[in-house]
Amino acid sequence: MILEVAILDVKLGQENEFEAAFRKAQRIISSIQGYVSHQLQNCIENPGRYILLVNWQTLEDHTVGFRESEQYQEWRSLLHHFYEPFPEVEHYQSVYSNVL
Amino acid sequence: MILEVAILDVKLGQENEFEAAFRKAQRIISSIQGYVSHQLQNCIENPGRYILLVNWQTLEDHTVGFRESEQYQEWRSLLHHFYEPFPEVEHYQSVYSNVL
Repeated sequence: MILEVAILDVKLGQENEFEAAFRKAQRIISSIQGYVSHQLQNCIENPGRYILLVNWQTLEDHTVGFRESEQYQEWRSLLHHFYEPFPEVEHYQSVYSNVL
Repeated sequence: MILEVAILDVKLGQENEFEAAFRKAQRIISSIQGYVSHQLQNCIENPGRYILLVNWQTLEDHTVGFRESEQYQEWRSLLHHFYEPFPEVEHYQSVYSNVL
């Protein structure tokens, strides 16, 4: 399993609108082949910052399967205009884990 | 519940040594009041980079309970010399989550 990590900086004052758009958008990502689970969390020290964590079965499920899908166009148009700067997305694999 | 997030950049060539030290260090963090779970994951695009995700019951369980404990001194001496630059740590709270 692969963890997608994106730190999302949302334009000032657009946090509520972003959260409403994300509520819709998460239905898109959840429907993709290889999707396992996701979390959107909001930064306590910096309220315009979010972290998106998505578990995928394989790296390619995200980088090819999702990003080259039609659904990705909808995801992009719902969410990408909120970000400033545009986020860097990285992928991680587990070394140690003790998750309940 | 609060998620602690730290992106850890480990000095070049010290990745194996860091992982061995972290194996010991995770016993420390797991013993602290308010600790819920943790994951250490390694970045695919940048092999010297790790992400540490720790769930705590409250923010203060980390920022006060752990950081002001004697055990933190041991954690620090096991791990902090591996990082370059020294990581910024942030805390997040859930907006949406669909974690299996």
